[in-house]
Amino acid sequence: MIKSVAIQGVKGSFHHIVSEQYFGNQMHVKECLTFDATVENLLAKKVDAVIMALENSIAGSIIPNYALIDSHNLHIVGEQYLDIQHNLMALPNQDIADITEVHSHPMALLQCKEFFKKYPHIKLIEDKDTAEVAQRIHKNNLKNVGAIASVLAADIFELNILAKSIQTIKLNETRFVIVKRENHEFPESEINKASVKFELEHKRGSLATILNVMSDCKLSLTKIQSLPKIETPWSYAFFVDVTFDDYEDYKKAKSILKIMAQDFKILGEYKNAKLQ
Amino acid sequence: MIKSVAIQGVKGSFHHIVSEQYFGNQMHVKECLTFDATVENLLAKKVDAVIMALENSIAGSIIPNYALIDSHNLHIVGEQYLDIQHNLMALPNQDIADITEVHSHPMALLQCKEFFKKYPHIKLIEDKDTAEVAQRIHKNNLKNVGAIASVLAADIFELNILAKSIQTIKLNETRFVIVKRENHEFPESEINKASVKFELEHKRGSLATILNVMSDCKLSLTKIQSLPKIETPWSYAFFVDVTFDDYEDYKKAKSILKIMAQDFKILGEYKNAKLQ
Repeated sequence: MIKSVAIQGVKGSFHHIVSEQYFGNQMHVKECLTFDATVENLLAKKVDAVIMALENSIAGSIIPNYALIDSHNLHIVGEQYLDIQHNLMALPNQDIADITEVHSHPMALLQCKEFFKKYPHIKLIEDKDTAEVAQRIHKNNLKNVGAIASVLAADIFELNILAKSIQTIKLNETRFVIVKRENHEFPESEINKASVKFELEHKRGSLATILNVMSDCKLSLTKIQSLPKIETPWSYAFFVDVTFDDYEDYKKAKSILKIMAQDFKILGEYKNAKLQ
Repeated sequence: MIKSVAIQGVKGSFHHIVSEQYFGNQMHVKECLTFDATVENLLAKKVDAVIMALENSIAGSIIPNYALIDSHNLHIVGEQYLDIQHNLMALPNQDIADITEVHSHPMALLQCKEFFKKYPHIKLIEDKDTAEVAQRIHKNNLKNVGAIASVLAADIFELNILAKSIQTIKLNETRFVIVKRENHEFPESEINKASVKFELEHKRGSLATILNVMSDCKLSLTKIQSLPKIETPWSYAFFVDVTFDDYEDYKKAKSILKIMAQDFKILGEYKNAKLQ
């Protein structure tokens, strides 16, 4: 039984929302300033699981988080999608004309910069976390300062939402994974998605050969990403997500790919969170 | 003839180094605060080309820059690789013990955070650009403040390097592209690399089929990246780089892929900057 989970950010952050959606609200939530710190807590057995953003539809994969999972041999045991909506918030009784500074995470500021072009009097300042700014405004009763954060953060820290969904690209889906020290906890019959990593030399057709095996074994690709291995020129690492109907098909593909690809590694086997 | 180029950052930034390596030092360099601003300058014909970081070996692809090239129908006409080395620098006669704050770009701070664990008295503060901080230290004679930037920045702004190559991962290769409004300027015989984009529906084996065509036409993959198209669920965009020996082989692949893949688009045809 999972009792505690580490998140990047404070309560009210998007990682916190994902934790509540996946585990419910009875979980002990350990707030961490960085993704590294969440993993340190997991390795030290201070928490049972970590929630980690892994990719989003605007910025793509968060490669350092893949590296954290890979280098510490952690396991992805689940996934959750969240449509991230950014809201401008401040102390009650403040109007948008009163706001002179907005502090938030660089990614949030980037996604909302079009909105702020209409308000040139507002200075945008980079900060560590979206919800932590909301917390600080509440705690220190900071007037003239705005935060960009979730509706949950506005609720928790009693702030007033001045503008809803202010990010430029309205659909802003982010994929989060649930990461543990141990392997999957579900019976094989319930597993229909896997994240794998393998390496290939720069040889014409080498990737096509691997994808042909996957296709022959009835696996469908939902993600592929190559990363050059700079310490070995002309060698590539591939991160691939596949979905399947029958675990036996996947098992067969695994046994072939272990022979065909270098350093074939399973990062996680879990339930697909997207209904097909 | 290219006479002016827009870079993200100020002189002494890594984009400036790439500009000097690619075009020499006779070019008029337009300093821009954001990648968006570089593209605005290009579209307004205020510059002839833009230098843009596109991926690095630590963080992966810079997807928003792919989106800038794609959405404005710009063309990649060249590429350049740079091994980014971060150096800690300050005013002359300052020792590392004198430094109380280091300001730099969030990515530079992230890549160097291990180094600063040995110096807990130093506060790390996020800033817009690496070289711009070096410029500010020089201009305002800022004592006790350090910058993380290139050797070129230390030279230009007369700062003293306190520690060399302080990033955790010593090999830190970044790929930059040269972007123009018009298509390639080289004869076809000199072109041996291309960046293409296409879309596929979520159908088993659809990507393998495309890669088989590429392999049959003697194209080698050097990069592949899928991005889900969230406005059309179960549809994916793929960004692929290929190298080839003979432009005719590539031409044949192009004509087949235009029929097989949806929205097949060429982002650029250029000379491979890596010797094989």
